[in-house]
Amino acid sequence: MKTSIELDTKEVGKWMEWLAAFGATENGGVTRLLYDENWRLAQHSLLQKMNEAGLSTYFDGVGNLFGRLEGSLVKEKTILTGSHIDTVIDGGKYDGAYGIIASLLALDYLKRHYGIPKKTIEVVSLCEEEGSRFPLAFWGSGSITGKYMRGDCKGLYDARNISFSHAMSSMGLQSDREQVKRADIDCFIEIHIEQGAVLEKEQESIGVVSHIVGQRRFTVKVTGESNHAGTTPMCYRKDSMHLAAELITYAINQVTDIDSQLVATVGKIVASPNVPNVIAKEVTFSLDVRHHQEEVLDNFCKKIFAYFKQKSIEASMNVEWEQWMDIKAVEMDADLRELAHSIVQEMDIPNRKMISGAGHDAQVFGTYCPSALLFVPSVAGVSHSPEEHTNLEDLKRGIIVLIKLLHRLAY
Amino acid sequence: MKTSIELDTKEVGKWMEWLAAFGATENGGVTRLLYDENWRLAQHSLLQKMNEAGLSTYFDGVGNLFGRLEGSLVKEKTILTGSHIDTVIDGGKYDGAYGIIASLLALDYLKRHYGIPKKTIEVVSLCEEEGSRFPLAFWGSGSITGKYMRGDCKGLYDARNISFSHAMSSMGLQSDREQVKRADIDCFIEIHIEQGAVLEKEQESIGVVSHIVGQRRFTVKVTGESNHAGTTPMCYRKDSMHLAAELITYAINQVTDIDSQLVATVGKIVASPNVPNVIAKEVTFSLDVRHHQEEVLDNFCKKIFAYFKQKSIEASMNVEWEQWMDIKAVEMDADLRELAHSIVQEMDIPNRKMISGAGHDAQVFGTYCPSALLFVPSVAGVSHSPEEHTNLEDLKRGIIVLIKLLHRLAY
Repeated sequence: MKTSIELDTKEVGKWMEWLAAFGATENGGVTRLLYDENWRLAQHSLLQKMNEAGLSTYFDGVGNLFGRLEGSLVKEKTILTGSHIDTVIDGGKYDGAYGIIASLLALDYLKRHYGIPKKTIEVVSLCEEEGSRFPLAFWGSGSITGKYMRGDCKGLYDARNISFSHAMSSMGLQSDREQVKRADIDCFIEIHIEQGAVLEKEQESIGVVSHIVGQRRFTVKVTGESNHAGTTPMCYRKDSMHLAAELITYAINQVTDIDSQLVATVGKIVASPNVPNVIAKEVTFSLDVRHHQEEVLDNFCKKIFAYFKQKSIEASMNVEWEQWMDIKAVEMDADLRELAHSIVQEMDIPNRKMISGAGHDAQVFGTYCPSALLFVPSVAGVSHSPEEHTNLEDLKRGIIVLIKLLHRLAY
Repeated sequence: MKTSIELDTKEVGKWMEWLAAFGATENGGVTRLLYDENWRLAQHSLLQKMNEAGLSTYFDGVGNLFGRLEGSLVKEKTILTGSHIDTVIDGGKYDGAYGIIASLLALDYLKRHYGIPKKTIEVVSLCEEEGSRFPLAFWGSGSITGKYMRGDCKGLYDARNISFSHAMSSMGLQSDREQVKRADIDCFIEIHIEQGAVLEKEQESIGVVSHIVGQRRFTVKVTGESNHAGTTPMCYRKDSMHLAAELITYAINQVTDIDSQLVATVGKIVASPNVPNVIAKEVTFSLDVRHHQEEVLDNFCKKIFAYFKQKSIEASMNVEWEQWMDIKAVEMDADLRELAHSIVQEMDIPNRKMISGAGHDAQVFGTYCPSALLFVPSVAGVSHSPEEHTNLEDLKRGIIVLIKLLHRLAY
């Protein structure tokens, strides 16, 4: 293949703006939720663009949209590339959307310049990843890979009390039809914005993801005694706020000692009764811990919960923790990573191997077929916000890497 | 006077229940707010009881109710005794109410057993202390002592948007009439529940208050950067929750080192955006500090705010604090304290000199005339709650001490 690939930077920008118009918010963001009208318009407009690019198009039973470039070796499995069409509420223009546009432009380029590939390639606009409308994330990738059965959406309702089944059928999709799990996927390639600031801070343009982190989330509840802030001497207090502050301080302070790639976050805290002149009876806080090795997560949890227990005994207060999320880390395919890395090296693009701290469709595919995940930089690391931005040059560079990667795999 | 005073314990209990019926809540508590219908019924029913006890009764211009036992030495000033009739929302039966009932029963006893005193004594049912309906506390004692002018209630509204002036006029009180400040008060004696657990824990029945604490309240705001909990390495974080937890831990840990009678409370905390998977951009918390010596309060504040500043610089985050309350400590009158102490000693009642950590009408009177504040125990220290309770024997014992004290002062 040609070593230099020419793409029109402005054209890339126009494609991003075109897709961002479906669900554009007053803030300059995008709200495109599973099976809403903006989602429907976006998917059907994408279908039209795929048709115009000469791809054969179809929806599966849950609303994943595919644009297929049939390969000449008909017995070969399908290379799947894409990302998700849905957004968070008032999210950005790039999260998910970029991966779909990049894949569509890549297939269009390959078809125009190299014609029919040996292996079939499909671009996919996955119906759902964020879990923003219904309490179910990865519905698109999960349906294709068999993580979800069709019945898993039963009994779920959105904030306006519309059932998942009703939302599906209003899009002409039948929730009780056959499963959509596929058995013909060779590999999955996703390109996505980083949603963090590492590439920007390190002045690199492409991240080749080695692992998507495992995530554990806990709710920690500290129970003391509510008392008058003036009439209760310190020695008689069971101050849940004081103990909670000590536990949070300790937990976060341990992180960097244990592993430089470990992250832990207390993002949410709720005190009761939460008034200035009453000692808090109860303080509840969240704890989110992420790393790509179970052993590191184990070490951290073991250390801090032993401390929580010890402090609880010392203070004669109750400290309880409940784990409500346990997502295992997923490793991306070593061969695909190596191939992607060799391409960016050949292109002399500043790049790094990195861990994804956020969840992506590639982690669902990663337990099912060889998968790859590539990152382009996010300006200031901002994501899930109207301010989400990636420079056009970085967007273009990512598409060129994807074109080269798909060419190596399919031609 | 007789060394032994006989009071019917059951009768004391009946009086408490009688007053608690005005504004009784479903929970077994009391809600009696300034100028509401329950307040009106309670004040007018008390007026009737005062009349039945042979006291001459009157309301002042803000709704403080007085029952006067005229002394024989007409040029002498008036000894005032009582407490406040209003409650917090769903408060207890004893806070304020006990002081009024105790004073009324004391005057009734003195009049029946000893006739006309030398000095005039008035029992007062102060209209307001808690600040539960309008954002203005100590309206009753503040109006008598000249802390408040009549116009100070202008422009204040309750939660239902009823103006203070309208609430007053609906009780037949005119907010624009003359000031109610009095110049004839000799001293003020208040008996109140402790609202703390010190007397109970130390197995004592009467507390003779030496000081009512000074109170300083602050709002502390820590501003960091909101970022993705997964994609932001620890070294790039400006985690306002982590820093807030460190500041709270430090502040509370300093208290007992500085002074055993110092108390500090972080009762309220609010994080933003307050979701588990986002690093908190901003954490705001309250800080309530109390002690009876300005110097101790100064030392504490100086120490912790120096630390807050240092940590703010180290973390490159903004830490701001705003003081929104500065109530100076008030010392109770030494002679009255000594007299009260000698009485409880003579009666062989286990007692202690103590600091009041809560605010009381006696602190408003304390800057205006010699004042005394006596405490009876609160079961488990509970107050401002339907569970607020004091044992009948303790209630009775307090009334007897009050009778003896008033006898020594007025006869």
